[in-house]
Amino acid sequence: MNNLSKSALSKWFQNLQHEICHGLEAVDGGGKFIEDKWQRPGGGGGRTRSFAKGNVIEKGGVNFSEVYGNTPQKILDALSLEQADFYATGVSIVLHPENPMVPIIHMNIRYFEMTPSKSKTKHWWFGGGIDLTPHYIDPADAGFFHKQLKDVCDRHHHSYYHKFKRWADDYFFLKHRDETRGIGGIFFDRLSSDDAFTKAERWKFVQDVGLIFMPTYRDLIARNKDKPYGEREKQWQFYRRGRYVEFNLVWDKGTKFGLDTGGRTESILMSLPPQANWSYNFHPGEGTPEHQTLQKLKKDINWIDAGNT
Amino acid sequence: MNNLSKSALSKWFQNLQHEICHGLEAVDGGGKFIEDKWQRPGGGGGRTRSFAKGNVIEKGGVNFSEVYGNTPQKILDALSLEQADFYATGVSIVLHPENPMVPIIHMNIRYFEMTPSKSKTKHWWFGGGIDLTPHYIDPADAGFFHKQLKDVCDRHHHSYYHKFKRWADDYFFLKHRDETRGIGGIFFDRLSSDDAFTKAERWKFVQDVGLIFMPTYRDLIARNKDKPYGEREKQWQFYRRGRYVEFNLVWDKGTKFGLDTGGRTESILMSLPPQANWSYNFHPGEGTPEHQTLQKLKKDINWIDAGNT
Repeated sequence: MNNLSKSALSKWFQNLQHEICHGLEAVDGGGKFIEDKWQRPGGGGGRTRSFAKGNVIEKGGVNFSEVYGNTPQKILDALSLEQADFYATGVSIVLHPENPMVPIIHMNIRYFEMTPSKSKTKHWWFGGGIDLTPHYIDPADAGFFHKQLKDVCDRHHHSYYHKFKRWADDYFFLKHRDETRGIGGIFFDRLSSDDAFTKAERWKFVQDVGLIFMPTYRDLIARNKDKPYGEREKQWQFYRRGRYVEFNLVWDKGTKFGLDTGGRTESILMSLPPQANWSYNFHPGEGTPEHQTLQKLKKDINWIDAGNT
Repeated sequence: MNNLSKSALSKWFQNLQHEICHGLEAVDGGGKFIEDKWQRPGGGGGRTRSFAKGNVIEKGGVNFSEVYGNTPQKILDALSLEQADFYATGVSIVLHPENPMVPIIHMNIRYFEMTPSKSKTKHWWFGGGIDLTPHYIDPADAGFFHKQLKDVCDRHHHSYYHKFKRWADDYFFLKHRDETRGIGGIFFDRLSSDDAFTKAERWKFVQDVGLIFMPTYRDLIARNKDKPYGEREKQWQFYRRGRYVEFNLVWDKGTKFGLDTGGRTESILMSLPPQANWSYNFHPGEGTPEHQTLQKLKKDINWIDAGNT
C-alpha cells in the first residue's frame, strides 16, 4: 500500500509538475519557468513555477503544493467538524497564451486527507479537473479536447465522462453573466473509495488526468499558435480575460477559499491574466466570430458530436 | 414629513446624479455620459450613466437606482427575517482617470427600507461613503480629501469623522494583500433614528456627503490632471487597478450581493477599470514612488495631520 501513501502521491504530483514545466518550455521555445519555494506557517509549503513572456505563453504558472496542519476554521465549518488535522497535496495550472487563437487552459488535481481529533478515522479524497477557455471557440478543437478527456474517463468508468463533464459545466459558470467560462471539460471532487472503486483505482484515474494535460495542450497549441490575428482579436482576448478574472474572483471556490484561509496570495492569483479589459455593456455584432463564440458559452453542449459535424 | 418620504429621497438622489454628471462633463471637457434606463423584473429600476474615453476620465459611471419588491432570500437570511418587502434607492459612482496621477474615486449613498410581512414595523436606514484610491499617494492631496470629509462630518456630529473614517479603513481593505484599497475616506451603514439623531438629521448628513463629492473631485482633478507621466506610471496604474478589481470582486459586499441576487450586472460592474494588469509577485524597488505608495496603504493613518507636515 506504500505507493498510495500521501508522501508517494505528493512525490508523483511534484514529478508531474516537473514534467509539465519541461514540456511547456519545449513547446514554447522561448520563456523559462521561474521557481519560488515557499513555506506555509501552519505546516508544509509549495513550489510555485511561474512563466512570463514566452513565445506562446504570455503568463501562467504550474504550482505544486503539499500543506498540512490544523484545519482552518472555514473548512471545519463547511464540513461540520470541531477539530481536525488536514493534509492536501496537488498540482494546479493556468496558462494564458499570447495569441488569442490559442485557448486558455486550466488543470488542478489534488489529494486531501482529514483526520478529526475526536475519532481516529481518516477521511481522504481526490478532486480536480481540466477545462478549456478559448477566446474564439473552434468546434473542431472543442471536440478534440473533449474526446481526449472522454477517452481518459472511459478507460476508468463508463459513467465518468458524462458525470464529470456536467459537473464542469455547472462549476465553470458565471451566474451573473449567464455564461460558461469556456467549453468546460471535466470536474470532480470527493472521489473516495466505495463499493465500486478502490483507492488505487481512483488514484490511477487522477494520474491519467494529469498525464493527458501536456499532450492535449501541446496539440491545441500546435493547431493554433501560427494563426494570424490583429488588434480586434487582441481586444476580444482582453475582454474575455475580464470574464476569466470575474469567474476566478467571484465564483471559484478554490480561489475564495485560499484567500480566505491565508493561502499564499501570489500562488493563488497566478491564475489571473497579464492584462484584462472592461468596457461598459459591450455586445459584439450578430454574425461576428465574437458573437458566435458567445452563443456557444452554454452548458450541456455535446462538444464531441458538435466537433464532428 | 413628506420631504422625508422615499419618493422625495429618491428624487433627490436622481437630481444629484444629474448634477454630478453635468459637473463631471464640464470638468472633463471631452467625454459625455451615455444613459441606459433599465427595469428590474421584481420591481423598480435604474438610470445608469456611463462615461468612456474623456479627456480626464477614461472610464466610469454614475448610477441611480430605485428598486423594491420581495426581499431576495440572501438578504432575508442575513437579517434573519422570513419574508419582507424592501425598498432601496441611491447613487453610486466610480471613476477611473486616464492620468495615473489623478486618483480613482468612489462614492455610494443610499436609503433602505424593510417591512417584514409579519409585523407592520418598517425599518429604515441610510448607508454610504466616499473613498479615494490614488495610484500614487500624495500626502497633501490625501490631507485635503480627508479634511473635506471631516468638515462635512463635523457639521453633523463630532463623533462622525472618527467613526466613519475607521469604518472605511476596515471596509476598504484587501485582507489577502494586507493592504488598504487606497487612502480610505468615510464609510457608514445602518444609520437610523435614535435618541441622538432624527431621520431628518441623518438625511441632511447623507445629502451633505453627496454634495461634497463634485467640488472635492474637481479640486483633485485640477491639482493633478496636467502632471506628466510616462509608460512606467501607466504600468503602475494598470497594476494598481488590478488591486481595485480584486477588492471589488473578492471583498466588496455590495458587488457580491448585487451579483448574487440578480442585480443588473453591467451597472454593478461599471466599477471595473478599462484595463488592469497582473504580473507574478511584482515588488517595486525600495525608495521608488511606487514603493512609497505601498508603504502608505495601511489602516489608521491620520491623513489630515500627515498632509500638513
